[in-house]
Amino acid sequence: PERSDPQLARLCVDFPVSVVLPAGGTGERTGLHTPKQFCLFMGRPLISYTIQAFERVSWIQNIVVVVAKENIDLMMDIVQRFQHTKVRAVPGGSTRHRSIYNGVLALGEEEEKPTPNVVIIHDAVRPFVEEEFLLRIAVTAKEHGAAGAIRPLVSTVIATTSEGYLAHSLDRAKHRASEMPQGFTYDIICQAYQMCSESDFEFGTECLHLALQYCGTNAKLIEGPPTLWKVTYKRDLAAAESIIKETLSKSACIITGGLTLAASLAASLQKVVGSLDMELDIIPDLKGDNARYLSKKYNFIQISVEPFSPCEVEAIVVALESKNQALLHPVAVIWVYLSTAESSISRRGAETPTLMDLALAAKLHNIFLYGIQIHHSKDSERWERSVLRLAEITSALIQERSPALVGQLLQA
Amino acid sequence: PERSDPQLARLCVDFPVSVVLPAGGTGERTGLHTPKQFCLFMGRPLISYTIQAFERVSWIQNIVVVVAKENIDLMMDIVQRFQHTKVRAVPGGSTRHRSIYNGVLALGEEEEKPTPNVVIIHDAVRPFVEEEFLLRIAVTAKEHGAAGAIRPLVSTVIATTSEGYLAHSLDRAKHRASEMPQGFTYDIICQAYQMCSESDFEFGTECLHLALQYCGTNAKLIEGPPTLWKVTYKRDLAAAESIIKETLSKSACIITGGLTLAASLAASLQKVVGSLDMELDIIPDLKGDNARYLSKKYNFIQISVEPFSPCEVEAIVVALESKNQALLHPVAVIWVYLSTAESSISRRGAETPTLMDLALAAKLHNIFLYGIQIHHSKDSERWERSVLRLAEITSALIQERSPALVGQLLQA
Ligand SMILES: [Mg+2]
Ligand SMILES: [Mg+2]
Repeated sequence: PERSDPQLARLCVDFPVSVVLPAGGTGERTGLHTPKQFCLFMGRPLISYTIQAFERVSWIQNIVVVVAKENIDLMMDIVQRFQHTKVRAVPGGSTRHRSIYNGVLALGEEEEKPTPNVVIIHDAVRPFVEEEFLLRIAVTAKEHGAAGAIRPLVSTVIATTSEGYLAHSLDRAKHRASEMPQGFTYDIICQAYQMCSESDFEFGTECLHLALQYCGTNAKLIEGPPTLWKVTYKRDLAAAESIIKETLSKSACIITGGLTLAASLAASLQKVVGSLDMELDIIPDLKGDNARYLSKKYNFIQISVEPFSPCEVEAIVVALESKNQALLHPVAVIWVYLSTAESSISRRGAETPTLMDLALAAKLHNIFLYGIQIHHSKDSERWERSVLRLAEITSALIQERSPALVGQLLQA
Repeated sequence: PERSDPQLARLCVDFPVSVVLPAGGTGERTGLHTPKQFCLFMGRPLISYTIQAFERVSWIQNIVVVVAKENIDLMMDIVQRFQHTKVRAVPGGSTRHRSIYNGVLALGEEEEKPTPNVVIIHDAVRPFVEEEFLLRIAVTAKEHGAAGAIRPLVSTVIATTSEGYLAHSLDRAKHRASEMPQGFTYDIICQAYQMCSESDFEFGTECLHLALQYCGTNAKLIEGPPTLWKVTYKRDLAAAESIIKETLSKSACIITGGLTLAASLAASLQKVVGSLDMELDIIPDLKGDNARYLSKKYNFIQISVEPFSPCEVEAIVVALESKNQALLHPVAVIWVYLSTAESSISRRGAETPTLMDLALAAKLHNIFLYGIQIHHSKDSERWERSVLRLAEITSALIQERSPALVGQLLQA
């Protein structure tokens, strides 16, 4: 990710940083049986997204995930299945603070990694944290001993009487919501937990507060972006899915096979889809330098001109499979079949099952394949209408990424 | 909606209740140009959903929406277009409190309606409030003079020093988030605003607090459901859309035409889709008593057996149009074409445009028409696979309600 703040470019992390990720929540507020951190988003548990957010940061050396004992096996399966490399799972304690402390202790016992200078504590259910903000937390924690994310209050906070009446309302200017991530030097977080009472372990909620109380450390507060929000309620699952899908739908490349007719359609499509908020690159094929698209977060639109045969799109699927590119999220591949002769339509019947068979096999590898047929018309008004519909269908398929619709041949 | 709490069944509202709906927000936190209350959800502005939540409550006599002067015309258009009947729009003031006071004053000036005993104040961007909770607020406000919704705090609230350090953290057990709706007797809300200072009008945030300060009224606080949440950030737009879509996708009726083959498919579909969380009723047609389905929040699945002709589904579209049933939200109509002979596939080419033409016309009336072809197979394994896919596609189409895919004939 780009660093938008030029001052940050001068910050750098030249000390070991590790992460503790408590993931013991039971998810009662979503009203679901599965704890939120294990809910699937396009086939992948939420916690894997959060792990990925840390794993891709070069200066983070390792991540300790703290889970309930009964979920250790599940967690190890997730680590293996999604090929996480910096992660170790340790069993949690009976409260949040005991779990975090277990994680901190585990960091000190690592054999191959140095004891970290700074520990970042985060929630498994805040998957959208960005490198830039982690950098600020790490550097500020190193400087001040403790640093924490804050956000403005969304609602007015009020104090209530024991009988359930309004006592008074708090001044919003002087109060903030305390969020995650928080960062601590290793010494301070250890000392705070070593010195704190059983009652703190049992009822305390704020690590920052323990650092203040037991180490005299004044935690520096940093206002974070709205993306730090915590997946809490059932509605948050939909919000998270929408953010993930939006990220996956930002760019696609159109492959023309170098054909004039296909290139002209690609150019029209680029014009129309551009206004729909997706970036399209046009390339003749995926050979040579263009093979790099297979390793990026791209979706693929293959334009084929007659004869009706999905062999080009099959090659894309094979290439994606070999790169293991769809491991972490489904890739959308759209086959646009540009027919020119009136007779072409009648060929569909016999061939359509081939597209479906291909799609069902690709889906097992997390590649979602859809087909769209567009008929070339010499009537320019009609052709423009078709291209517009092609653009709308293409965006909808890429953005909605519906598993139920793979293998269909739609009509533009 | 059903009243889940048996105690509530004994509560009743036999006094005039009116609503003030401040809708002057600029929506800066969503990062969009359109203020949130005017953002479209399936073609309808959010505020219309909120208005509907009040309008359907029999004991609410009228609603005053307070909007910025420059949005009065827009608001009147919305009222007319979505046929709201209890609504009047008045111009807002320069702050939230001035706007609410304008709304309260407007209630006192109504010629045809009595001055209300109780005024409910709500936010235009909390569209999911339920009758049961409104009832509790109204009755409690009548009894105590003022009543307000509260929610548990999601994050720990902390006090900050002026230098940006942690001062202390608040006890979560003694604090709550103050939410909407709130209710007041008309006399108390009037008196509070008549007596309060310019500074209260300018900087105050809590109506409950004004009632306490200027009328000595102890507001009774009532814990509300999570659905009271306020659409605030961009992610909340996705969450709101998902809730609306889920509500619209709860039930569908399958129309069999009384044919044995169709009825048997319908029964299989009911079994499979039932496990996918949608309720399906099976009926032979929409005649007589069954016409009631046209006036309910149902989606429609028409099963037609050969010959290939969408005339039955056309009749459903016509009936829905005549009932104006799709005024407030799009209705999904799925045409399932059950083909039996091998030859049937070849007929598609010529007929498909008819389905698309029909779908494009229906879309103008907010009816989303999709087609699915299923081929009857005597191989029972193959047939079961087809029925399963039919169920998956049907649920996906009804739940995703994609405007770009109307008129397509998909293959099960
Ligand atoms: Mg904490
Ligand atoms: Mg208020």
